[in-house]
Amino acid sequence: MSVNSFGRIFTVTTWGESHGPALGATVDGCPPGVPLDEAAIQPFLDRRRPGQSKMTTQRQEPDSVRILSGVFEGRTTGTPVQLMIENTDQRSRDYGEIAQAFRPGHADITYHLKYGHRDYRGGGRSSARETAARVAAGGVARAALGELAPQVTITGYMVQMGELEIDRSRFDPEEITRNDFFLPDAAAVPAWTDYLSRIRKEQDSVGAVVEVLIRGCPPGLGAPVYGKLDTDLAAAMMSINAVKAVEIGEGMAAARLRGTENADEIRMGPNGPEFLSNHAGGILGGISTGQDIVLRFAVKPTSSILTPRRTINRAGEEIDLVTKGRHDPCVGIRAVPVAEAMAACVVLDHLLLDRAQTGGRRGEIG
Amino acid sequence: MSVNSFGRIFTVTTWGESHGPALGATVDGCPPGVPLDEAAIQPFLDRRRPGQSKMTTQRQEPDSVRILSGVFEGRTTGTPVQLMIENTDQRSRDYGEIAQAFRPGHADITYHLKYGHRDYRGGGRSSARETAARVAAGGVARAALGELAPQVTITGYMVQMGELEIDRSRFDPEEITRNDFFLPDAAAVPAWTDYLSRIRKEQDSVGAVVEVLIRGCPPGLGAPVYGKLDTDLAAAMMSINAVKAVEIGEGMAAARLRGTENADEIRMGPNGPEFLSNHAGGILGGISTGQDIVLRFAVKPTSSILTPRRTINRAGEEIDLVTKGRHDPCVGIRAVPVAEAMAACVVLDHLLLDRAQTGGRRGEIG
Amino acid sequence: MSVNSFGRIFTVTTWGESHGPALGATVDGCPPGVPLDEAAIQPFLDRRRPGQSKMTTQRQEPDSVRILSGVFEGRTTGTPVQLMIENTDQRSRDYGEIAQAFRPGHADITYHLKYGHRDYRGGGRSSARETAARVAAGGVARAALGELAPQVTITGYMVQMGELEIDRSRFDPEEITRNDFFLPDAAAVPAWTDYLSRIRKEQDSVGAVVEVLIRGCPPGLGAPVYGKLDTDLAAAMMSINAVKAVEIGEGMAAARLRGTENADEIRMGPNGPEFLSNHAGGILGGISTGQDIVLRFAVKPTSSILTPRRTINRAGEEIDLVTKGRHDPCVGIRAVPVAEAMAACVVLDHLLLDRAQTGGRRGEIG
Amino acid sequence: MSVNSFGRIFTVTTWGESHGPALGATVDGCPPGVPLDEAAIQPFLDRRRPGQSKMTTQRQEPDSVRILSGVFEGRTTGTPVQLMIENTDQRSRDYGEIAQAFRPGHADITYHLKYGHRDYRGGGRSSARETAARVAAGGVARAALGELAPQVTITGYMVQMGELEIDRSRFDPEEITRNDFFLPDAAAVPAWTDYLSRIRKEQDSVGAVVEVLIRGCPPGLGAPVYGKLDTDLAAAMMSINAVKAVEIGEGMAAARLRGTENADEIRMGPNGPEFLSNHAGGILGGISTGQDIVLRFAVKPTSSILTPRRTINRAGEEIDLVTKGRHDPCVGIRAVPVAEAMAACVVLDHLLLDRAQTGGRRGEIG
Repeated sequence: MSVNSFGRIFTVTTWGESHGPALGATVDGCPPGVPLDEAAIQPFLDRRRPGQSKMTTQRQEPDSVRILSGVFEGRTTGTPVQLMIENTDQRSRDYGEIAQAFRPGHADITYHLKYGHRDYRGGGRSSARETAARVAAGGVARAALGELAPQVTITGYMVQMGELEIDRSRFDPEEITRNDFFLPDAAAVPAWTDYLSRIRKEQDSVGAVVEVLIRGCPPGLGAPVYGKLDTDLAAAMMSINAVKAVEIGEGMAAARLRGTENADEIRMGPNGPEFLSNHAGGILGGISTGQDIVLRFAVKPTSSILTPRRTINRAGEEIDLVTKGRHDPCVGIRAVPVAEAMAACVVLDHLLLDRAQTGGRRGEIG
Repeated sequence: MSVNSFGRIFTVTTWGESHGPALGATVDGCPPGVPLDEAAIQPFLDRRRPGQSKMTTQRQEPDSVRILSGVFEGRTTGTPVQLMIENTDQRSRDYGEIAQAFRPGHADITYHLKYGHRDYRGGGRSSARETAARVAAGGVARAALGELAPQVTITGYMVQMGELEIDRSRFDPEEITRNDFFLPDAAAVPAWTDYLSRIRKEQDSVGAVVEVLIRGCPPGLGAPVYGKLDTDLAAAMMSINAVKAVEIGEGMAAARLRGTENADEIRMGPNGPEFLSNHAGGILGGISTGQDIVLRFAVKPTSSILTPRRTINRAGEEIDLVTKGRHDPCVGIRAVPVAEAMAACVVLDHLLLDRAQTGGRRGEIG
Repeated sequence: MSVNSFGRIFTVTTWGESHGPALGATVDGCPPGVPLDEAAIQPFLDRRRPGQSKMTTQRQEPDSVRILSGVFEGRTTGTPVQLMIENTDQRSRDYGEIAQAFRPGHADITYHLKYGHRDYRGGGRSSARETAARVAAGGVARAALGELAPQVTITGYMVQMGELEIDRSRFDPEEITRNDFFLPDAAAVPAWTDYLSRIRKEQDSVGAVVEVLIRGCPPGLGAPVYGKLDTDLAAAMMSINAVKAVEIGEGMAAARLRGTENADEIRMGPNGPEFLSNHAGGILGGISTGQDIVLRFAVKPTSSILTPRRTINRAGEEIDLVTKGRHDPCVGIRAVPVAEAMAACVVLDHLLLDRAQTGGRRGEIG
Repeated sequence: MSVNSFGRIFTVTTWGESHGPALGATVDGCPPGVPLDEAAIQPFLDRRRPGQSKMTTQRQEPDSVRILSGVFEGRTTGTPVQLMIENTDQRSRDYGEIAQAFRPGHADITYHLKYGHRDYRGGGRSSARETAARVAAGGVARAALGELAPQVTITGYMVQMGELEIDRSRFDPEEITRNDFFLPDAAAVPAWTDYLSRIRKEQDSVGAVVEVLIRGCPPGLGAPVYGKLDTDLAAAMMSINAVKAVEIGEGMAAARLRGTENADEIRMGPNGPEFLSNHAGGILGGISTGQDIVLRFAVKPTSSILTPRRTINRAGEEIDLVTKGRHDPCVGIRAVPVAEAMAACVVLDHLLLDRAQTGGRRGEIG
């Protein structure tokens, strides 16, 4: 029961601190025979990597992943895959004030209260840098999905940043990888760029909503009543730094709907059952229907801002603190590849669990 | 790794179907020496019990809980507590059509696809009746919290039903138990009553938002980075039937905020650190701050309505289906005691886990 | 992480005390569609049941199992199977002395030290009566194996009782069910009967060695390096009351062997690889080879004897204690069906786990 | 549920293959504030390291451990401790025959059957080299025990090698670290040396029995009925390569005893209860009594010998195979520090678990 692990069959344990020598993920439960090498994982890390645009932190890390175990002659062996990313940009600096002060909105004070002793450098374990390990693990999950369920695609994108929301009528999945915002609408990029530049100049930050779309997920995944697919997806997203809410399908908006509006009616299509709508977001009773799985989550604005904030230090003194450093004005942007990685791990995990439970057999209709 | 279990130290495994002989919860990890008997649990079940007002289903079940193990001479022994609730209102009826049809918006079709063989009576395992077992387990958790952390209070209430939202300026916790809606505002009761009566007459149903307030939770609970307190609370709520979204603190609204608005500043109060606001909802970095923990979740409108809906049956025939029976027009109402129970289990679980991790010691300030 | 659970996919949580109202097992992870009813489980309980011969305790319990959930229309649904056995022979008696005294060789003192508060009636949770629940769960496992791997047979028998050992040259599996000792040698029964009668008359008890033979287990089950098949079997046996040692294959005798003697050489047979011997007991590197799996375990003599023993009570007073009641002179006898049940659960569990890990595919030879 | 993990609160996940770039252990659940650095762990690795005497393999590896996370300013932070040992002595060689052949008595064939694809270099994951990671993790456990229960000592030693057994009347714990056999009897060293040299010259190997003595373990550790202390110790030992049997206290010999002989009587001593004997090996009902915990396990003779053995290869051809390489004539010797490490992990784990369960409180006597 490691609290730094997630997954039931495909288990991922991340380790490492922001400014330690390295961080990584211990991945167990990957099926044997899956083609895998560093080159299959690196692109996902590159997508998440900071320092790539003015929109994200200027910390420069190559984030090169190394596979230390579990792969032989280019294929997984069924033994643990150890993924290591060395921290190379550990600037030597004076942590004097940060070492003793609790940055408001950060985990500094709760880590101190709980553990008594904490690695204060760059947030230590609570740093978003930990998510690099998740993204690497997600690369392994994607490789395994590529063998077991190649029709599955998992795509994350921004749908809101502060006051700006996407215009769904202009949704174009092709655009997502072409801009710095993972934005499915090319026309919106200039406005988003201006908005975030203004936030940054104001020494402030802003929140965001990310959506993840899972297509091609077979029906039957999910394990009621506490290992539901939506439960596990919600936990996976909520465990990402700065996430404050998770929605499946209609999400919070379901509260406003009537039963006559919300229940997705079913007809027979050429290949079997077809739902006439997807308010459920692809999951009923915790089990995938075979429809698109749609989830969203809200990311709070980072508290690492250059505007002075009131706080205290370990000595109990009241101080004003500016969080210097190289921070993202909108951490939601880099949460996109992280969320995709988490979703890939959860879907693979449930695919493997379902093999154990049912042998992958499906009930027949018609 | 039972998928019908939740909790790390205080583990709850629920079992049973809506129309089987009984259902219940196997509770392991309750500390020894906690005063416990049926009378300590029954009031929570009574709060959740259907048939108490026109606002909920007219199914009549006494929902009497029986403790079969783990308690001796009125106190827990540290061994598993088995809680059993017999199903007494299993009306003998013809399940002909339901046995073969998939009610839209229900888990009928996904259970069929996954398992091939399902108990179709009243939804079987996917029925909200399973939550009676959770409420019973929550009663054990409350009893243990009463010994270990008696200052903790956990209160759920409705904040939205369809188009109606509460007026927070009139929030009165005393009112919650005085009306059929768990509504913290006596003045709103007539309007809510009229609204729901109209929904019912229209043979429809409506969604809701429930809020849970946890007061007195000590700081330091929660286990980064995947056993975070908010992660576990989110999973617990998302596992409740019909829940489609979970928020902590600002929740989805955090996406619209600036860092300067969102980060809760800290000053020293007479008894230690004091936060000047609570946008975080009492949790930072996955660990409790000692502030109020505030979470909300959205419940979809039940799909069990008397209005005919299009669907299919096992033979693959397209049919129109009316879900007869005794259904709640707003299942969100009865989700209130269920959410409280889940929250109690999660808080106790983390209290026990923290004892293992840190011995309950807290870092010092000042 | 319930400490009253075992199994990874097929999980069994037992609950209940010797003299409480009932005990049972919550079984999760049983595949759907398995034919199951009480009649499929009862014979295993009947084999374990006390009061059947002079060789075991005279406590009379029908040990009727009831399935409360997870089975519908005679087949499992993939949801938790709740098995309940009511305690009917709870003689009303005065527990005065036992309530305060610690029987030597029993868990009385350790339960008291750990939990502070214990159910002293008949040993409470530490009673061998808990194994009835295991046997019931084993019945579910056997039913599932009957569907998934019908060629698997699991047979336990006595190979030693005190000074008596079986003559393996007269091993006859047909005899095992024909005598009160689960003895695979009809000719030895009179001598074993005389021996145990003498022990009983001397108000004493005696230890035993039980062997379990698993035939037909497919190769490839077991999960290195900590979920090895032998590791899980060893833990399963060691968890049975009074067991003090577990051996696989050559067991302790392997210490005396040379590498040239011990390694099982391999040749090709008509149906694939064939081992020329089975010193390994059917498991190499924690994974089944497809050969017979052979394990043994030692059961200590019960400490519940009529001979007075020196001990203390809660007040710290030194006393002499006679453990009255209806006790087995050789608890090893009734451990036979318990061990079979545990083995069945472990084999099924690994069969399901292997489906998750590899989809049940096997590497090819030739 | 990683099958490469053990422990409930203090969890250890080992990773890595014999001839990959590195191997190690991901250790989660270590309490915060424990003094720890590489120097605290290295001595345990040095004890296990091969190439130190003629009695063990001549493979030369420095086995230098590196801590990559979880430690800050010389003390643990409560976050995962990543331990890495680089493989430096990966001789470039031709694995041609071994790559295709299944060494008898090895896991080659079972890994092939299960996984289809295996790292055949040096046994890959099934190599005893994996135990280096366990020993490193054990170093962390010892450091934590040093803080939480400094009175606990854990000592392993050989009690049998092939036909040779120790003379317990000459038992001297001081001698254990002074010879190449972890032998508690200086006088026996020459005979053991001669014996093993002869085995080696005969191109053979031999089995062994190792005993582990845990002193100072507080009473109350162990979690009935499946997380018993003896169950977890048995599993831990059985998971070590080549182990075929585990005994607690009297072990297999208990089968021959009478109840009057076996039950450890209790009297009051100056500091509380005192047992007059220790047949139970320090554990009753799965819970520690406070007495010495004594366990033994048998290690089979390694199958890596220079004598040709009959086997097959992947093509299904019958071949004769000599396992070249640098092998230990008695792998039991190097199992000693491994067993100590596993025991340290289990004791710490139960100490932490007990804190969760009972807060560490003990029932009173007298």
